[in-house]
Amino acid sequence: MIKARITVTLKNGVLDPQGKAIEGACRNLGFEGLASVRQGKVFDVEIEGDDRDGAKARLDAMCEKLLANTVIEDYSITLD
Amino acid sequence: MIKARITVTLKNGVLDPQGKAIEGACRNLGFEGLASVRQGKVFDVEIEGDDRDGAKARLDAMCEKLLANTVIEDYSITLD
Repeated sequence: MIKARITVTLKNGVLDPQGKAIEGACRNLGFEGLASVRQGKVFDVEIEGDDRDGAKARLDAMCEKLLANTVIEDYSITLD
Repeated sequence: MIKARITVTLKNGVLDPQGKAIEGACRNLGFEGLASVRQGKVFDVEIEGDDRDGAKARLDAMCEKLLANTVIEDYSITLD
């Protein structure tokens, strides 16, 4: 079994209204000194077998096709 | 400026219908061998100043109060 973590974040320069809302909420709760908050997604995936190269290639394809919108998002894959 | 990444994931045993839906979608797209997919959230935070201990403490408090529901979610904080 291979465990992988995929992290999908907005590219620099893409507006993140959700992050801005969280930043505002933090300020309202009294947390000072925040310069910025940006939100992304994380996917913890378990893949059967132990072909790490094959798994990495499949995860790449999954990100391109489904998990990330590569026009506005970057993704990174780390295998355990 | 301190950069931190907060990762919020569901605790083990908590049902994740969103993850299940993603898993199903991946299968439908032809990706075989998936054992499980679980989705979480990631927050990239920038904090002014360079007091790393203070920043860590404030991020902890932010997670407890706002960013994570600690009944069903775990969080981890990594400082760059």
